[in-house]
Amino acid sequence: MRKRVIVDMDGVLADVYRHFILLERERYGIVIDPGRIEGVSEEEAFPHFTRIVNSGGFFRHAPVMAGAVEGLRRLEALYDVRVVSSATEFPASLREKYDWLREHFPFISWRRMTFGGSKDLICGDIMIDDHTFNLREFHGRKIIFTQPHNINIQEPGIERAGSWPEVTDLLGC
Amino acid sequence: MRKRVIVDMDGVLADVYRHFILLERERYGIVIDPGRIEGVSEEEAFPHFTRIVNSGGFFRHAPVMAGAVEGLRRLEALYDVRVVSSATEFPASLREKYDWLREHFPFISWRRMTFGGSKDLICGDIMIDDHTFNLREFHGRKIIFTQPHNINIQEPGIERAGSWPEVTDLLGC
Repeated sequence: MRKRVIVDMDGVLADVYRHFILLERERYGIVIDPGRIEGVSEEEAFPHFTRIVNSGGFFRHAPVMAGAVEGLRRLEALYDVRVVSSATEFPASLREKYDWLREHFPFISWRRMTFGGSKDLICGDIMIDDHTFNLREFHGRKIIFTQPHNINIQEPGIERAGSWPEVTDLLGC
Repeated sequence: MRKRVIVDMDGVLADVYRHFILLERERYGIVIDPGRIEGVSEEEAFPHFTRIVNSGGFFRHAPVMAGAVEGLRRLEALYDVRVVSSATEFPASLREKYDWLREHFPFISWRRMTFGGSKDLICGDIMIDDHTFNLREFHGRKIIFTQPHNINIQEPGIERAGSWPEVTDLLGC
């Protein structure tokens, strides 16, 4: 039986940092230097975080993370891949995230999508997520996907992947 | 640590049969006798199943299952309650189900909601569901909630609750 890989959306498949940076500039004229927001939360990094994340289309038009489509296709050939995303905190994002996945990852069927809610009830063999609060609760192999907010984090039992090619290397595909 | 109870929506919290019967009559003039649709699937029981389930508002305006609000409140006092519903097959239902839960079960926060997808990646101690295909995959105590389609099913390892008071009796609250 294939091992099950739980893949997060924001900060792993969807390049939300690129989207925040773009929208801060386009809408508010603020230029964010990616190098200067390392180690701080997204809320702290982006002055208009709340307005932007709540604006219609933020999730629907998020850029795809570099290498994610190819990477997820490679994973899908060897593993039981499930996309699990927190979305119920921002209910408008539920449909946006569904539509975004259908557009960019059409090989991920509706059965393989889960929108929560807390992820502590999710079981699998491997989890790829950019947040330690999701990985810590997980009872399998844990891979943190590098994003500026987590760049300084080093925790025992959590492996790091700086990019999608590094993910596929770690997982033997 | 509290035991985690996974509670299904359609056919457990939401009385979808009542809604189908109402809408077959209102929209199509068809009177369905509940006694004559036992042991058959919902798709077979309702001539306009597909049209109705895809119509806007079907999930948003579903009646609440008798005793469900009181029952879930009682469960919530003793257990870690999570509502897990299949919704990604009908993506318009994602937001409708969220809004329906917020309206009828406001004590269930966004963290406690999960919309899938297959439920085989969900872990907990107890599952209450009206479909055996969800219960069979579950690795904990299994309770089938009686609905006309499952009324003849008897499977080893699956307990039956015919109503919400029976659920709370089984779970000691």
